[in-house]
Amino acid sequence: MAEGGKGTLQVSAVSMNLNGDRENSAIPITTSLPMNGGKGTYSYFNNSCSQRQCTEDEKRKFIEEIEQKLDMKKLFSLSNTIRLADLGCATGPNTFMIIQDILEAMQRKHQSQLSQSCFNDVQHSDDHQMPEFQVFFNDQESNDFNTLFTSLPQDRQYFAAGVPGSFHHRLFPESSIHFVHTSLCLHWISKSPEVLQNKASPTWNKGRIHHTSAPDEVVEAYASQFVEDMENFLNARAKELVPEGMMVMILVGIPKGTPYSEIPMGMMCNCLSSSLMDMAKEGIIEESKVDSFNLPFYAASLEEMEEILEKNGCFKIERMESTNPAAYLKGGPVDIPAWVTNVRAAMEGMFAKHFGSEVMEEMFGRLTDKLVDIADLINSRCEVKSQLLAVLKQGGQGTSQVSAVSVNLNGDRENSAKPVTVSLPMNGRNGIYSYSRNSYHQKLSAGLEKGKIIEEIEQKLDMKKLSSSSNTIHVADLGCSTGPNTFMIIHDILEAM
Amino acid sequence: MAEGGKGTLQVSAVSMNLNGDRENSAIPITTSLPMNGGKGTYSYFNNSCSQRQCTEDEKRKFIEEIEQKLDMKKLFSLSNTIRLADLGCATGPNTFMIIQDILEAMQRKHQSQLSQSCFNDVQHSDDHQMPEFQVFFNDQESNDFNTLFTSLPQDRQYFAAGVPGSFHHRLFPESSIHFVHTSLCLHWISKSPEVLQNKASPTWNKGRIHHTSAPDEVVEAYASQFVEDMENFLNARAKELVPEGMMVMILVGIPKGTPYSEIPMGMMCNCLSSSLMDMAKEGIIEESKVDSFNLPFYAASLEEMEEILEKNGCFKIERMESTNPAAYLKGGPVDIPAWVTNVRAAMEGMFAKHFGSEVMEEMFGRLTDKLVDIADLINSRCEVKSQLLAVLKQGGQGTSQVSAVSVNLNGDRENSAKPVTVSLPMNGRNGIYSYSRNSYHQKLSAGLEKGKIIEEIEQKLDMKKLSSSSNTIHVADLGCSTGPNTFMIIHDILEAM
Repeated sequence: MAEGGKGTLQVSAVSMNLNGDRENSAIPITTSLPMNGGKGTYSYFNNSCSQRQCTEDEKRKFIEEIEQKLDMKKLFSLSNTIRLADLGCATGPNTFMIIQDILEAMQRKHQSQLSQSCFNDVQHSDDHQMPEFQVFFNDQESNDFNTLFTSLPQDRQYFAAGVPGSFHHRLFPESSIHFVHTSLCLHWISKSPEVLQNKASPTWNKGRIHHTSAPDEVVEAYASQFVEDMENFLNARAKELVPEGMMVMILVGIPKGTPYSEIPMGMMCNCLSSSLMDMAKEGIIEESKVDSFNLPFYAASLEEMEEILEKNGCFKIERMESTNPAAYLKGGPVDIPAWVTNVRAAMEGMFAKHFGSEVMEEMFGRLTDKLVDIADLINSRCEVKSQLLAVLKQGGQGTSQVSAVSVNLNGDRENSAKPVTVSLPMNGRNGIYSYSRNSYHQKLSAGLEKGKIIEEIEQKLDMKKLSSSSNTIHVADLGCSTGPNTFMIIHDILEAM
Repeated sequence: MAEGGKGTLQVSAVSMNLNGDRENSAIPITTSLPMNGGKGTYSYFNNSCSQRQCTEDEKRKFIEEIEQKLDMKKLFSLSNTIRLADLGCATGPNTFMIIQDILEAMQRKHQSQLSQSCFNDVQHSDDHQMPEFQVFFNDQESNDFNTLFTSLPQDRQYFAAGVPGSFHHRLFPESSIHFVHTSLCLHWISKSPEVLQNKASPTWNKGRIHHTSAPDEVVEAYASQFVEDMENFLNARAKELVPEGMMVMILVGIPKGTPYSEIPMGMMCNCLSSSLMDMAKEGIIEESKVDSFNLPFYAASLEEMEEILEKNGCFKIERMESTNPAAYLKGGPVDIPAWVTNVRAAMEGMFAKHFGSEVMEEMFGRLTDKLVDIADLINSRCEVKSQLLAVLKQGGQGTSQVSAVSVNLNGDRENSAKPVTVSLPMNGRNGIYSYSRNSYHQKLSAGLEKGKIIEEIEQKLDMKKLSSSSNTIHVADLGCSTGPNTFMIIHDILEAM
């Protein structure tokens, strides 16, 4: 699992703090910084191979999900362009490879849906030309986008764009993205919890740099920051994804109940702590610097993630599981120096900012020595399932209940004292919360079912019989609300008839 | 005009060569490189103030065009998001300021259309909530996007994305952009013409670094590269802009018939040539290096631009004029050292790549001296109208004639020998060139007129009378082609009725 640990150390799109301002905070809240830029010895670009290896197995699984569950016909019916986003893309090249694989899976799926559609009904394939693809590469503003852009594949079959900013906020317009991928980023929390700095509290994390081997209060403080960040992340993505749009998340996890100190990543955190404490004792750095540093990452269990997703309610879980990220090692021993180089490419920025870049060589050197000393222990714990995969679709119970709040003809929300036990009509007229101005999501969602309805009409409705008895065909839409969605679906039904 | 010259020297989004490969060419075709990155002494970020001053006047004009001629109601009816692009954005801050001004003008226009719509008919304002804006900042892949991204305004009211690549190619999906702005970039041609390297030809540009003071053959070679680049640019934008989408272009120009050597920019080119030739004679650089260097920029006249736009046919010209970029000087003298610093921020990359960065200090020093010597001449020519402004709308005669090529039931194009003197139906069925698969643009265009038709129906059609004589209302669409556009407009008409 220690090699798996290599894979779990990718630092990516994590914001400094919630108001987007990096430097204004007086207290030393550790924040995650982007990976080493450029293409040098310790650059992420040249040291991200193991991240790729760790996620190879997950890729196979979610490509399968795309092929089985992503309805390209539906997505394409909503837009002329299919838009993909890789959140926490870093500088490449992993992002280009995974995007290429996702794109090809989508093209295959589209092609197979197209030929199926042609087989069933030649007429139906009219609107199924190959879509154009646009890919948004996102990471923190301080990410090395220059390296990313100059490394873009020349023969790519998509329009590329870079999007700087924290994925804990909105990054894209409403309902504009069809597929989101994020790999080994979400375990990085937006900042280390402030309470860890409080010397008078049981959450003071003295002598440690992480929640590994820390009291429950410290672990809980980390967990609560993780929950807050995930909430922000999920709410932003729920807005941005089209209905039925897919999101794949791969993140560092831990089996429920396992102490983090018993998996290689935790062992590495402890070795880093003790390397820094040794350096403090030798006067190389200040001990108070160690006390105030808290690595901003948290490893959640499958159960924790499920609870967050359920509470959020904006997504349907298509697949969710914990896996062994080091499966590719096939039981072979961990290459410890290579692992440390990988850790360095991902984390050096954070440590250098806090402790000074002049001690980095020393710190990573000591880390290597300590890890080599416990290599057997690390190798014995290599098979812990410490990686989470979630394949989600936009549109859980949370997103379908927007709008229908109260009956109020001026379109403004009203706090009604009596319990809502009867269903009420959508907000009327054209106010800011009116249904007619807030039904874009519903329109897209309904659009997705259109195909099935139309197919049924075409196959099973006997127009000849219906029209034999009357000169006029009457169509009714029950629960039509105020439009304009009702008119669109009625149009399609009429057309089919 | 010499200060105006300062403003005309912004190097921006120009591709290296058409296959996108920078280094594979053996012959020394000079290509334009991005502006100096970072935020140092000679950075574009800190030396682009005069570009802004030169375009202040143009801004006032095109903001006026937005307010008068951009129909936000129409644009917003096509999409939930309004997308803007600044092509050749460099590293800022000018791009942020101009985008902010454009965005505010669009918001004002939207607001005024909204209140007008509310005044005329309360029902109609239903679908006019404020759009979300997404802004794409484009420049060459080698542009310093890191500086751009870390300088993005914190309080911006739009989603930001960076798009690396040459604007002589497609950058965005079809019909996805509503407004394009490009300022002081398009006069930079994609490469200096290859024929300028041919020693046996009258186009050999010996002893000069530009078409200034060169024989007609050299000027024509430049002009023809400019025409090719503009064609590529216009064709790409025609695809990407929505129907009626607006494009604003500001570029270096010249009054028809004026020799380029008689305006300050030309004087500067000649001073650069002679500085380099002096350095060659003193053995500092090789003379052959001067012969093989050709600054890749061309100043077109208003008449040339009109001809290119007319031939291309994809855009309607809303406004087109030549102006004096140095108007803001109000007759005051040019600050020559400041001008040279500006030129350096914009052009150093190109000269350094060809002549070596070690001679840049020397070269720009000599340039300053030579320009100071002819300061009176420069000041006397400061009022030449050497800047072009074009405000265009997508949808000239060229874009409406796609699709209706031949009658061919398998949907493939056929070369018909007989002259097409009768109008023929759109391509049938569902082949690659069929109308049903190639009518997205027409759909959007027709969508724009919908509002007017619906208004007429609502105001002037007496449904009571029409239905008094019959149980059924018959509606006909003449020239309906194969759909699906016909169904959509019919739906809207039915709805209005």
